Amino acid sequence: MNIFNVSLPSDDKEITDPLLSGRNVLIERIVSTGQASPEGFWYDQEEDEWVAVLQGRAKLAWDDGRELVMEPGDWVLLPAHERHRVEWTSKNPPCIWLAVKGRLC
Amino acid sequence: MNIFNVSLPSDDKEITDPLLSGRNVLIERIVSTGQASPEGFWYDQEEDEWVAVLQGRAKLAWDDGRELVMEPGDWVLLPAHERHRVEWTSKNPPCIWLAVKGRLC
Repeated sequence: MNIFNVSLPSDDKEITDPLLSGRNVLIERIVSTGQASPEGFWYDQEEDEWVAVLQGRAKLAWDDGRELVMEPGDWVLLPAHERHRVEWTSKNPPCIWLAVKGRLC
Repeated sequence: MNIFNVSLPSDDKEITDPLLSGRNVLIERIVSTGQASPEGFWYDQEEDEWVAVLQGRAKLAWDDGRELVMEPGDWVLLPAHERHRVEWTSKNPPCIWLAVKGRLC
């Protein structure tokens, strides 16, 4: 599956495709089309996540007040239990994320 | 460092930048500008490598005769000790690889 080939769903959901499901690491492509984390929701993940935006734009926020607008090519490390949320994602073009999840740090 | 921001060197070398050097995983950006593996050389790596082309083009070859031309968004898993080489990379635009190395499989 080519990372930049996107078949948009008819509904309004994010699409997650595993590219590699390995012993220590999961590599996923995530396609967002305007979705955001629910109001008041924070991700509090058991594993570390390294994530890049490869197309489109998105904004992350952390519960310590940090914010980050991500453009294509920007990436960030989200250590396990670093509470964060997705404030917004672009719909046009869709926001293509590449995520590497596991015990990375 | 933005993955798509490339400062080309004045010499003719590939540029490798570590993006994450973790416990189990190394994530690197590699920028190739026409380089190829030396004649008769085969990579025979101790670790698995998942690698994607994000810009430009490249061709890989394996010692069992397989060949793969990679366009932006194409990716491949190179298990440890799977002997392979880079036949060619594009110079204009530079070939931007994203590599995830470690004990992945």
